[in-house]
Amino acid sequence: MAAPTTKAFRVDSLLRERASLVIPGGMWGHQRAEAVPAGFPQFFSGGDGARVCDVDGNSYIDFMCSWGPVILGHRHPAVEDAVRRRLDSGDCLNGPSEAAVELAELMVRQFAHADWAMFQKNGSDATTACVTIARAGTGRRKILVARGAYHGAVPWCSPSMVGVTSEDRAHILEFEFNDIDSLDKAVETAGADLAGILVSAFRHDLGIKQEMPSVAFAHAVRAHCDRVGAALILDDVRAALRLHLAGSWETYNVRPDLCAYSKAIANGYPLAAVTGSDAFRSAASDVFVTGSFWYTSAPMAAACATIEEVNRIDAPGLLNAMGTRLRAGLAAQASAYGFEIFQSGPPAMPLLQFANDPNAELGERFCLESLRNGVYLHHRHNMFLSTAHTAAVIDEALDATDRAFRTLAHKGMSNDGTCLRRAV
Amino acid sequence: MAAPTTKAFRVDSLLRERASLVIPGGMWGHQRAEAVPAGFPQFFSGGDGARVCDVDGNSYIDFMCSWGPVILGHRHPAVEDAVRRRLDSGDCLNGPSEAAVELAELMVRQFAHADWAMFQKNGSDATTACVTIARAGTGRRKILVARGAYHGAVPWCSPSMVGVTSEDRAHILEFEFNDIDSLDKAVETAGADLAGILVSAFRHDLGIKQEMPSVAFAHAVRAHCDRVGAALILDDVRAALRLHLAGSWETYNVRPDLCAYSKAIANGYPLAAVTGSDAFRSAASDVFVTGSFWYTSAPMAAACATIEEVNRIDAPGLLNAMGTRLRAGLAAQASAYGFEIFQSGPPAMPLLQFANDPNAELGERFCLESLRNGVYLHHRHNMFLSTAHTAAVIDEALDATDRAFRTLAHKGMSNDGTCLRRAV
Repeated sequence: MAAPTTKAFRVDSLLRERASLVIPGGMWGHQRAEAVPAGFPQFFSGGDGARVCDVDGNSYIDFMCSWGPVILGHRHPAVEDAVRRRLDSGDCLNGPSEAAVELAELMVRQFAHADWAMFQKNGSDATTACVTIARAGTGRRKILVARGAYHGAVPWCSPSMVGVTSEDRAHILEFEFNDIDSLDKAVETAGADLAGILVSAFRHDLGIKQEMPSVAFAHAVRAHCDRVGAALILDDVRAALRLHLAGSWETYNVRPDLCAYSKAIANGYPLAAVTGSDAFRSAASDVFVTGSFWYTSAPMAAACATIEEVNRIDAPGLLNAMGTRLRAGLAAQASAYGFEIFQSGPPAMPLLQFANDPNAELGERFCLESLRNGVYLHHRHNMFLSTAHTAAVIDEALDATDRAFRTLAHKGMSNDGTCLRRAV
Repeated sequence: MAAPTTKAFRVDSLLRERASLVIPGGMWGHQRAEAVPAGFPQFFSGGDGARVCDVDGNSYIDFMCSWGPVILGHRHPAVEDAVRRRLDSGDCLNGPSEAAVELAELMVRQFAHADWAMFQKNGSDATTACVTIARAGTGRRKILVARGAYHGAVPWCSPSMVGVTSEDRAHILEFEFNDIDSLDKAVETAGADLAGILVSAFRHDLGIKQEMPSVAFAHAVRAHCDRVGAALILDDVRAALRLHLAGSWETYNVRPDLCAYSKAIANGYPLAAVTGSDAFRSAASDVFVTGSFWYTSAPMAAACATIEEVNRIDAPGLLNAMGTRLRAGLAAQASAYGFEIFQSGPPAMPLLQFANDPNAELGERFCLESLRNGVYLHHRHNMFLSTAHTAAVIDEALDATDRAFRTLAHKGMSNDGTCLRRAV
């Protein structure tokens, strides 16, 4: 068992310095330099199965999976082969290849609610297309979203208002996730102008306890949409294929009218998708949504290979089992070292938080110690498992987190945060 | 010299049938099935240099270049090698690779106005980011755009209003391209709320005569922005690297504050970019724009290889020479067969139109006959040359277009359109 080490970040530091000169803020979006805690690498050089490697050659068991896209492990052979076959003949051509049709057929078979499919590049493209289709199909304008939910980083839904105008959100109304009363009120406010209710597969907002939808809430969303003829839009960008093979709300027996996908559907290759029911097929053909790379075949071939593989091995079952194993191990370790932790979200997409740690400082220290021991965790964003996280990998990761908990305890850190300042 | 043939589209027809069941309208966006003229293939299987191949094995000299992305020819070895090297270690990781820094440095060196760069996936991502940064940097809201200009397919700029609300465009004002009076009026209307003027490198609107900006117009845009402290946003998504290596308005000695790129910068791999001046660096670091695949390294490595190669071989010079050769040949043929044509746009991105052909019916017939003779042209959208279009390739294409003109003439078609209905 390796001793804790201090990782060297020599190349990383040089790259950060260079980046600070030519990239605003050193990096943009959720990867912006200031969002990467001290002691974490910013730049990566490769990935293999359950492991990712930074530019200084440090290897980590990876529980972010590229922030979701990697579901079969980095560089899964079946996916890589499918991509290379496409690249060998041509990826970006004057129109789609047959992969577009094969993937659309596959998704219609795969997802219980789906009668049709269309493809984009970003998760934001898919959620925006859903909103546009819902408005086109209903002739109405209001879209209901849960307060604090992340549906993308374009003006109508960005978590930031910097550079965004109030008109960009003129027809966006909010409710509280899992709160049927607040949903009822928002539906009433929208009145005859309700085009759709957009809801994430579960509450995976940054830095808060993750929450599965209650059965009653999921059914209330469906009932409202049915009553007024609005679209139930499921944002399955983050969760698709990790929770249920036929769609993340199949467990609740609630089917959306429109569903947005991205992240894991092509195991890391850039693709997003919208599926819909026949009721919205005509609207989907009436709207104009497009992009220069929305017809390229390699990511579609990657998606076909990914979907086939997640079915073959029952990825949701595996991820749930391994996530449960991880969760149990972390719970036992926390208890043994005297820490009170909360673990929330589905086991396949877990979040670990410490009690009395509102700014996640203790969480960050724990992740930093885990990182030093070769495990890449996140303290505020839900993490992701891939099917390359076998029992042996989970156990190896748990060895590392055990050392991380032990270090925290030895340094006198605790849930009351008293020793945190000194220890940092 | 091959005789004209009727292309077989057996596989294409089957794919169209299958697509019509699972994809709304058979295909979405600018590739939607009804937008593909009868006799044109919808589905493609590969590309090589200046040629593209459809799913039935028909090969064409390609003057669409994947609607712009392919500038060095399909599957250029230097680009493909760079991509494969990245894929061999890992493309989509927990953060960017050093390729992000290398590419940002390269773009800052390449584009005269650029002090910094950031990357996205779609052209729409880049134009939307520019608008958001302009608003953040100025604290104002109004964006001026030329009437009919294409800046993407998201609600604030989509050419279609289906599913779009009027509030999505609350702060978009229009002027006429190359019309300084109308620009002055729009600036006056925006008043103290002018955040930016967004303008394409040239007027490349669908189905109309293409138009380069006048020197006076380009300077008027710059002067207005300077006077009121608004951002000059150049939409160079379509033209970048094809007209001038240092930015498409360098010819006019006019530099933008913000510039949007996509299409050709990675020779077909999915990437978009924004560059900006120091005046907007802080705003660019303040806005939140991101995407799951915006940090992947293979497209960035492809862009580095592409930019190096277009410099090495002076791509704009080559494209201009070959576009001029094509244009001269077409002009001579048209004249010889008694057709009056207009050729507009820069030679590197040409458009051919027939006189007295408002619905481009004669243009479509000409493209169809060229297609039968092995040349893929477009009758309404500007076309694109790549550096794989050598003089020999241009001459081979001209042999085909000569046959196409001859067929039209033999069928009695002419600019007055009298024989068109019968001939179709």
